[in-house]
Amino acid sequence: AWSRFMTKKFVTATAIGFSGVAGYWFATNPSERHTVFNSFTTNYEPSACARWDFNWDHREPSSLVKPLKDSENADSEKDYKHAMEKKKGRATRHLILVRHGQYNLEGETDAECILTELGRRQASATGERLKNLELPYDVIVRSTMARAQETGKIIGHRLPHLKLKDCCLLEEGAPIPPEPPVGHWRPEASQFFQDGARIESAFRKYFYRADATQKE
Amino acid sequence: AWSRFMTKKFVTATAIGFSGVAGYWFATNPSERHTVFNSFTTNYEPSACARWDFNWDHREPSSLVKPLKDSENADSEKDYKHAMEKKKGRATRHLILVRHGQYNLEGETDAECILTELGRRQASATGERLKNLELPYDVIVRSTMARAQETGKIIGHRLPHLKLKDCCLLEEGAPIPPEPPVGHWRPEASQFFQDGARIESAFRKYFYRADATQKE
Repeated sequence: AWSRFMTKKFVTATAIGFSGVAGYWFATNPSERHTVFNSFTTNYEPSACARWDFNWDHREPSSLVKPLKDSENADSEKDYKHAMEKKKGRATRHLILVRHGQYNLEGETDAECILTELGRRQASATGERLKNLELPYDVIVRSTMARAQETGKIIGHRLPHLKLKDCCLLEEGAPIPPEPPVGHWRPEASQFFQDGARIESAFRKYFYRADATQKE
Repeated sequence: AWSRFMTKKFVTATAIGFSGVAGYWFATNPSERHTVFNSFTTNYEPSACARWDFNWDHREPSSLVKPLKDSENADSEKDYKHAMEKKKGRATRHLILVRHGQYNLEGETDAECILTELGRRQASATGERLKNLELPYDVIVRSTMARAQETGKIIGHRLPHLKLKDCCLLEEGAPIPPEPPVGHWRPEASQFFQDGARIESAFRKYFYRADATQKE
């Protein structure tokens, strides 16, 4: 399941100056926001649900600032631009997704699904690699499942200055029925209904643009 | 916030025989499902979103069974009714919502928001009452906030046979902007976006009808 890939995360933040191209484009082409050009034709209009939602994390500056009325004067426009600038993030958040190591597939309960010898070596090598990358990590977040707890603990041995946080939102689950359907994996509708909301909430908790107060 | 009331729960189940009136009504009046009569008039048609969603937990038997086609014969109809019966829950799940005791409102971090002397007495009295009720409790679920952890622990002293489970989905949050707005409580849109999904997932995790396999 998709959420297996989400069982552990490194949340880190690095400064990238002035948020670059995207910020410039936002400021100069507001009316073209919902235009998408694909690679082989420019007269193809994508359906509404296929368009990028610029307010996907509910942190788009224009959604946080009182809209400008057409009738307003140059001063109001200056104030509006200033307010927009103040809400614009300058930093970038980096999330590194790490999968748990190989585990005992014979286990029936979560507690029995512990790492194999190979799984422990995989986790250890991942920790070593992350340490060598020397990125400015903030925190290690791991799911509350046994295999993620173990993987996170082993990685944490190489990065002992980082806090290890546990998060039950990241547990494995059934986010949405696969299209086309998979013969051997058909959870109940109620399972998708429960896990879907939980996994969506995990996404919203970790995936969002840096806010304006984040410096680096 | 609403979710304060959700900081701790007793999940328990008791048999109520044949699920009674509702089950009978489902079987005999399927075409009237979406008709709602209010108290002062019977010709009032509620809007679509105000109607009860019978599949609110995605466990409504008719949604779990292959629909019957008009053209099919009496045997098919018998099979359909049999399949519906097999999916119908016979038991009732009871959730008892308990709020945390009074806590130190001066605390700035969650860890500082611990129970006051009065709060501890409130929790203790609640535990005593729940014990005296002698209901067939299954489990105590408490949120991971300090005041709920403490309240749950004190209640657990009176019900030592019950497992104490921790659940971060139940933490306090901003589920949905209040209507009308509250002057002194205006979380950011992104806060409602994040907490809303998480609190919805808490609801879906705990609030659902008993399934057909639950005996009591």
